[in-house]
Amino acid sequence: MKLYQKLAEFSAATLHEAMGKTGNLPSAIKPVSASMRVCGPAYTVSTMPRDNLLLHRAYAYAPAGSVLVASCSGFYEAGYWGDLMSLGAKTKGINGLVIDACVRDADDIEAMGFPVFSRGLCIRGTSNHGDGSLNEPIVIGDVLIRPGDIIVGDRDGVVVVPHERIADTIEKAKAREAREVWVRAQLREGKTSLQIYGWE
Amino acid sequence: MKLYQKLAEFSAATLHEAMGKTGNLPSAIKPVSASMRVCGPAYTVSTMPRDNLLLHRAYAYAPAGSVLVASCSGFYEAGYWGDLMSLGAKTKGINGLVIDACVRDADDIEAMGFPVFSRGLCIRGTSNHGDGSLNEPIVIGDVLIRPGDIIVGDRDGVVVVPHERIADTIEKAKAREAREVWVRAQLREGKTSLQIYGWE
Amino acid sequence: MKLYQKLAEFSAATLHEAMGKTGNLPSAIKPVSASMRVCGPAYTVSTMPRDNLLLHRAYAYAPAGSVLVASCSGFYEAGYWGDLMSLGAKTKGINGLVIDACVRDADDIEAMGFPVFSRGLCIRGTSNHGDGSLNEPIVIGDVLIRPGDIIVGDRDGVVVVPHERIADTIEKAKAREAREVWVRAQLREGKTSLQIYGWE
Amino acid sequence: MKLYQKLAEFSAATLHEAMGKTGNLPSAIKPVSASMRVCGPAYTVSTMPRDNLLLHRAYAYAPAGSVLVASCSGFYEAGYWGDLMSLGAKTKGINGLVIDACVRDADDIEAMGFPVFSRGLCIRGTSNHGDGSLNEPIVIGDVLIRPGDIIVGDRDGVVVVPHERIADTIEKAKAREAREVWVRAQLREGKTSLQIYGWE
Amino acid sequence: MKLYQKLAEFSAATLHEAMGKTGNLPSAIKPVSASMRVCGPAYTVSTMPRDNLLLHRAYAYAPAGSVLVASCSGFYEAGYWGDLMSLGAKTKGINGLVIDACVRDADDIEAMGFPVFSRGLCIRGTSNHGDGSLNEPIVIGDVLIRPGDIIVGDRDGVVVVPHERIADTIEKAKAREAREVWVRAQLREGKTSLQIYGWE
Amino acid sequence: MKLYQKLAEFSAATLHEAMGKTGNLPSAIKPVSASMRVCGPAYTVSTMPRDNLLLHRAYAYAPAGSVLVASCSGFYEAGYWGDLMSLGAKTKGINGLVIDACVRDADDIEAMGFPVFSRGLCIRGTSNHGDGSLNEPIVIGDVLIRPGDIIVGDRDGVVVVPHERIADTIEKAKAREAREVWVRAQLREGKTSLQIYGWE
Repeated sequence: MKLYQKLAEFSAATLHEAMGKTGNLPSAIKPVSASMRVCGPAYTVSTMPRDNLLLHRAYAYAPAGSVLVASCSGFYEAGYWGDLMSLGAKTKGINGLVIDACVRDADDIEAMGFPVFSRGLCIRGTSNHGDGSLNEPIVIGDVLIRPGDIIVGDRDGVVVVPHERIADTIEKAKAREAREVWVRAQLREGKTSLQIYGWE
Repeated sequence: MKLYQKLAEFSAATLHEAMGKTGNLPSAIKPVSASMRVCGPAYTVSTMPRDNLLLHRAYAYAPAGSVLVASCSGFYEAGYWGDLMSLGAKTKGINGLVIDACVRDADDIEAMGFPVFSRGLCIRGTSNHGDGSLNEPIVIGDVLIRPGDIIVGDRDGVVVVPHERIADTIEKAKAREAREVWVRAQLREGKTSLQIYGWE
Repeated sequence: MKLYQKLAEFSAATLHEAMGKTGNLPSAIKPVSASMRVCGPAYTVSTMPRDNLLLHRAYAYAPAGSVLVASCSGFYEAGYWGDLMSLGAKTKGINGLVIDACVRDADDIEAMGFPVFSRGLCIRGTSNHGDGSLNEPIVIGDVLIRPGDIIVGDRDGVVVVPHERIADTIEKAKAREAREVWVRAQLREGKTSLQIYGWE
Repeated sequence: MKLYQKLAEFSAATLHEAMGKTGNLPSAIKPVSASMRVCGPAYTVSTMPRDNLLLHRAYAYAPAGSVLVASCSGFYEAGYWGDLMSLGAKTKGINGLVIDACVRDADDIEAMGFPVFSRGLCIRGTSNHGDGSLNEPIVIGDVLIRPGDIIVGDRDGVVVVPHERIADTIEKAKAREAREVWVRAQLREGKTSLQIYGWE
Repeated sequence: MKLYQKLAEFSAATLHEAMGKTGNLPSAIKPVSASMRVCGPAYTVSTMPRDNLLLHRAYAYAPAGSVLVASCSGFYEAGYWGDLMSLGAKTKGINGLVIDACVRDADDIEAMGFPVFSRGLCIRGTSNHGDGSLNEPIVIGDVLIRPGDIIVGDRDGVVVVPHERIADTIEKAKAREAREVWVRAQLREGKTSLQIYGWE
Repeated sequence: MKLYQKLAEFSAATLHEAMGKTGNLPSAIKPVSASMRVCGPAYTVSTMPRDNLLLHRAYAYAPAGSVLVASCSGFYEAGYWGDLMSLGAKTKGINGLVIDACVRDADDIEAMGFPVFSRGLCIRGTSNHGDGSLNEPIVIGDVLIRPGDIIVGDRDGVVVVPHERIADTIEKAKAREAREVWVRAQLREGKTSLQIYGWE
């Protein structure tokens, strides 16, 4: 088991807090199904608006275990990804997709159990010119994502953990969770957060 | 069985592709429940913002089997349609509603099994002045919809098939699906789309 | 049983109509789970953007049975509320939260059965400076909400009933529902709303 | 000279600060020409979307010296006001218009020197049904505006001074301006605000 | 002088009213300089997002006197047009450009006196693949624009006059202006629109 | 004269093209007056929403000649900067401000000739808590900005030139301008870009 896989034990929100409230992608990016979760190293993609050839290349070239992470020039209104690509990616051992745009074929993707996080569903097709970049740093929201950074997503949203901060983040997330066990006990006894944190 | 009913066998995305990537309504228009599907000839409605009298007229005048398709002057923040109208429309044999605005009474609509595609749910009531048009060409997103064009909607979105292209679209959709069966088999064997389509 | 609790028997849409089409909060504010419902007197909160200390104070100070209602300076992209606060609030007998911004820990909130109505889910953390106001009139959308006004929320949306209009609103809502029973019967017999309301 | 007219000597920003950072209308509401300024007691208007009959009534009924302030149900994409109405209003002694929507005939309005603050220019015409309210409290952005509250607008934006706070606001605005004279002198000598305010 | 050129004597708002309140493009499309005006038959362009090759083709192929009208797949954030293209188009006798997206080189365009109506200014460059269509019907906002329809734009906005309605629209615009002369006189005498139109 | 100052001889659009169509900030960020231009090394600022203490620190600490570049957590609706800060910054030799949010006191800023690029004007005041960062990498739009990167802004927009690419960018911009002189001559002779670039 690789170290980064321990990140999957924490919620995206907990990891975001553990990193000093950083790494959160825009909240509009959500799983196609509320129960989907994803964790793995980023294989980054930057496409022209409404063009998806680089996403085909991405799942062909990315190492097994990768999470594809795609920025699409800020053009959301297209279905850059669908059932066939999910099948291809899943077969190659890709762990999931996080895309700052829309996808389609939600029922098939759900049935396949391939985790996809997107801005929503859109049937509009794409072109296949292929301009853009693969496996270079990209920006989504206000987060810089470099190849190999760890992506963790759940129902609440998606967080990016820089690869050099994995161990530190796990440690802080553990500490946070331990503290929350204690806070939860205090709350159940009727104390308020004002009392528990001394904010009164 | 009418020819257009064969369109219901395909997904909205497939039909959009079969027509050369045209006919897609804005992706914000989605079914009230993910499992709703709709297929039928458009009975078009154009209303003033926050006025729904023409929708009452529409379900009264439209032939059984119609799908009501409504543009509301770009004003989304009102519940133009609800449980009573769904009951009235269903009783008259209307096949469903696609509206570029919001509706209300989601639980009742769902329980009734009347397919409604909208921009979301909104409780805000409407006036009853009745300005606008019935059964004339309207525009939603960048799509011109004429009375009798076929509307197909599913979880992924809604597509409009011009009535003169029904047969052609069915044929191309079938061809696309046949090809996809073959592609899926190739993908399962580990080939990538780059290899399958010769994009490498 | 307090008089305002009778409001819980009606949908938010019915109450909005009973008050002459007023009191509707923006439709983007929706329950975390479609089945959540809330009813109770408002304990109002106004926060600075991305600061949640006043929400901690709110659940500590508000009387049992209250619904916390929070305006967050129009800054939605933060998780102002989560599982620990839900636990604390539930333990204190708070009835629910309506917030014009995002929250996080949806799975836990859902499991706890604590009703939360928000603009969505966001993992981004907040600061704890505490500027703002508690239990003073606030505005959400175009609705003025004063402490003690009654908040009713369901899947369709959220409505605010001014405390001096409770009895009147219940009466009108009842009358509306009675009329709807009759309309429903007419619709089932094949009459249209044009005929029923004499709009033809 | 009425007391409220002294408010015209201060910028909208200064008055907003003098009131403890309250009363600011949404920043999208701006003068048709950068040099327009307005000051006067509000005569409030609330219209249905894309309907302007109440604006005709408003300038006919409002006392000379009034500033018409209109909320239009959140529907901006219409020209609710134009050259003829500006002429009529100016002839009646109306001081100006602040509208949370668009207007048209910018060149004529500018030439006439009638101050109009709006979300922009739009040629789309309106209906004349007349639902809504006149001279009752309205909400724009997060500000409650009651008839008689004072409206002050300039290039930077628009602020609402509650009528019971006029004297107090003038006093605090004067104090603020006096302090700014001194701050400006310090800044010119090369001191920074950190030093001046002791924030270092 | 061609008949359509008489349309240039009226404001865009007047023509919109003369056509029964139709033909208005989205209000976000405005002239680069407030004083620019345009009038001429549409030569339509539909581009892929962030691709401008078809605009190069458009000014090369369009007849002198044309107004280029371009839809860009709803992707606004690019400078599809600049100083060189303006120079090329002006040299070929093109009358102006209306584009549902952004342009760049505003100072040069202004100095050249070539009328451009756009959603704003953006420096982001484009690709040159050339997918899309030339001189076929397009949709901008909720308006269908066919080659040869007349485009009239001024500071207030842009209107599209269907080519078969030119004569009728001129006649109605004239009648409207004549009536306005009389209304203006009444207003100057202190009558209100309520009295003039009998709305009281 | 420092090398980066040669960048001021080119338009923001030209520099963007010279860098392979990169570095463009969101087009909503525009100069307060159309004639303002700015060029200088970035001193970066990241603030909490509606808090401006770090901007006070920034102009106090930044070296003369710097351009302050501020990200404000995506919260635009506040006036983070005004006349006093402009005076202070100008006195310290700061070259200008680029802010992904709003400012106020436009008339004074304009009169002072201090270049400010913002999303618009807003009178809403800020708090002074001071969370955030100074002189660390920030993201605006999809551009990573590091301290010392060169900022160039004009009427068309703002571009960021990475400090290690200054010489290369100047060279390519010069080449581009030289080529444009030749293209312009061809266009004036009636050739189209299709002929000039061989796209026909």
